[in-house]
Amino acid sequence: MPDARFQPLPGFRDFAPQECAARNYLFDAWKRVARRYGFVEWEGPTIESTELYLKKSGGELPTQLFRFKDQGERDITVRPELTASLGRIAAAYQREYTKPLKWFEIGSCFRYEKPQKGRLREFYQFNADILGESEAGADAELIALAIDCMRELGFREGDFIVRLSDREVWLGYAAKHGIPEDRTGDFLAIVDKFERDRPEECQRKLDAFGMRREDLVAFIENPPADCSPRYSEVLAELDARGLAGYVKLDLSVVRGLAYYTGLVFEIFDSGRSLRAIAGGGRYNTLVKALSDGAADMPATGFALGDAVISHLIEQCPHAKALRDAALQPNTCDIYLALADPAQRPALLGLASALRDQGYRVDLALSPAKLGNQLKRAEKQGARYAVVVGEEYPQLELKNLSARTSATVGIDELFAALANDPEEETISE
Amino acid sequence: MPDARFQPLPGFRDFAPQECAARNYLFDAWKRVARRYGFVEWEGPTIESTELYLKKSGGELPTQLFRFKDQGERDITVRPELTASLGRIAAAYQREYTKPLKWFEIGSCFRYEKPQKGRLREFYQFNADILGESEAGADAELIALAIDCMRELGFREGDFIVRLSDREVWLGYAAKHGIPEDRTGDFLAIVDKFERDRPEECQRKLDAFGMRREDLVAFIENPPADCSPRYSEVLAELDARGLAGYVKLDLSVVRGLAYYTGLVFEIFDSGRSLRAIAGGGRYNTLVKALSDGAADMPATGFALGDAVISHLIEQCPHAKALRDAALQPNTCDIYLALADPAQRPALLGLASALRDQGYRVDLALSPAKLGNQLKRAEKQGARYAVVVGEEYPQLELKNLSARTSATVGIDELFAALANDPEEETISE
Repeated sequence: MPDARFQPLPGFRDFAPQECAARNYLFDAWKRVARRYGFVEWEGPTIESTELYLKKSGGELPTQLFRFKDQGERDITVRPELTASLGRIAAAYQREYTKPLKWFEIGSCFRYEKPQKGRLREFYQFNADILGESEAGADAELIALAIDCMRELGFREGDFIVRLSDREVWLGYAAKHGIPEDRTGDFLAIVDKFERDRPEECQRKLDAFGMRREDLVAFIENPPADCSPRYSEVLAELDARGLAGYVKLDLSVVRGLAYYTGLVFEIFDSGRSLRAIAGGGRYNTLVKALSDGAADMPATGFALGDAVISHLIEQCPHAKALRDAALQPNTCDIYLALADPAQRPALLGLASALRDQGYRVDLALSPAKLGNQLKRAEKQGARYAVVVGEEYPQLELKNLSARTSATVGIDELFAALANDPEEETISE
Repeated sequence: MPDARFQPLPGFRDFAPQECAARNYLFDAWKRVARRYGFVEWEGPTIESTELYLKKSGGELPTQLFRFKDQGERDITVRPELTASLGRIAAAYQREYTKPLKWFEIGSCFRYEKPQKGRLREFYQFNADILGESEAGADAELIALAIDCMRELGFREGDFIVRLSDREVWLGYAAKHGIPEDRTGDFLAIVDKFERDRPEECQRKLDAFGMRREDLVAFIENPPADCSPRYSEVLAELDARGLAGYVKLDLSVVRGLAYYTGLVFEIFDSGRSLRAIAGGGRYNTLVKALSDGAADMPATGFALGDAVISHLIEQCPHAKALRDAALQPNTCDIYLALADPAQRPALLGLASALRDQGYRVDLALSPAKLGNQLKRAEKQGARYAVVVGEEYPQLELKNLSARTSATVGIDELFAALANDPEEETISE
């Protein structure tokens, strides 16, 4: 346990090397999957003009922003999310890339919220977005990517569920029930809170529209067949990919944010013991709004945070086993141990030569007993220790996992390393 | 060129995919080298209590901080550098790691400065530090790492120079010239500004110590032999590593910051056309100060920014050629092209199977002409296109670089891909 006297600010985290390796395990998995799907990485600035977020949210800003005046009196915000920057940058660069754009990003976001399980003031988000393609193929590609980001971490069918919904269905429902267009947003907000509000509270809100909660319950529990053509198309595409078992239609999902325009989804652990793991959907009008009409691209995207999923890994034995195996300490391929201080220059030259070949090499930086050096080698998970002593240029090559030892010359050392059948694991 | 209407804030940058790939090229190189040296990655929070930076700088804070009051009235700062967090985190976690700690970090830093070439308001720093080892071997290991971070990017001897200095030499000089200890800092500040101040300005400052500028010039230009035993030791270690040609003793380097305690260094392009590329040195008392005495670790470290080095790559033909070759667009291994719309489910199933094997696969998300699909395949640098048509499960496998084509079954497809002699380049 870290010394409690040296804490970061509340809601912020320190990543000492072990924690950083666990973080990188997530990042590496998401990057691998995104690249397999043909997505390319982008990154925006950590701080943007607050105006950009005002444009995105249509004038109503959330209250949890890290929003400040900078030394030049600019109204700036440390980014709470990535989609506003994405829209701005996509508008700026759209002419340089063939559409559809398949872009991903992993970066820190900041929200001044009450820190609690799965909710932090600085957290990482993996964002993936497809811009410039309005067809269901793009929604399916994106949802498949989200599912594979989970599968890559060892989660299986049954561990989590993608709850798919379609705001178009609710817009049709609202129209059919005579809700005027300018009040549709208020109605969607009721549906959005449907699961969280107490029934009487929900009914009180519905009274304004002359609606009964039980009708909504019935509609959500038994949605009309083919109520969402888009959902049916996406389901067929996911089925062809072998991924239909990961999704279900769940019209109670609306996604609070005003800018979503069609298919939306959220990923939850099957036991619903945690907050949403990921969320996203179509936002066909946002890029146009962010660019004041200069760029008009239909879009679909999602964000997956690092905090909730880390809790889920702890809860899920096969995901945890996969991660723990990946985090075995192995920060060194070859440890160079010095048995004769006079040979330190030879050892250093050897270190450079091995590192130039891509091997991860460590060595004692000050005089140390041979036994202690070899202990450090084991601690770092080194595959080999090479002892440089007075017999140099003869060396002792110890295979620490096989517990074998041999006397070799320098050329033989390089040959032995190059011919190691597990070679791939010991260099980059 | 990006559309100028959609700029980030001044001094901040957008990384559209091409720019992000260039950024990642730097990050990947530094991470590779750090790992070869047995360094492990850590990360601190982007925002810290301002008090931490006050502790570090001994009460005098720089004026360019992004320093604010948060919603809970805390005095917070968006980090201007990484060493303060490192000291705090190392103090918190020191019992969990065997010393010496060899830690590296790559992260954004923020300074409210006038944006200009090589100087931004948000920039990346690669930081590497060795904590818990006071011997010269640690300084040499760290400087060798810095040199190899440059070599990995294609820079050669003669492209850049590590200017090594030793503050102990100046402390001895100050003592010898009767400067009282409490004024040594003022004296070091004069030496620090020696190259930038006009000679008369420098002399005016030296008057306070009854010193003549020409004596300083003579001392810097012809330092006494073995004036710095630490420098001699480090040079011998670098020589044994084959890296002595990259360094020179240059006592005009002092490093402004008060916390440096011994050997310091800066890396410059040989033509001195740019600002410093990197800087660092020993800070043996800082961790103790940051932890109010709880952790006392000698330390040495350096920071290397991404902005100046990017300019240097542009100036240096062999470094630029290496980078440009690494940035060839190749975001896809296999492009799946659809010749018969009825076969889309087959194509999607194939995409999943190939992606599950680690291949980077792309496909059209909505109906498109075969010719356009194949154009997109080429644009993404795909090695193969696989055409799925009415002959499915027979497929047409096109090798886009070799410009060959063959009809294959599904099993043959996987076999052909697995046996590709350039296989390593087409999967992860």
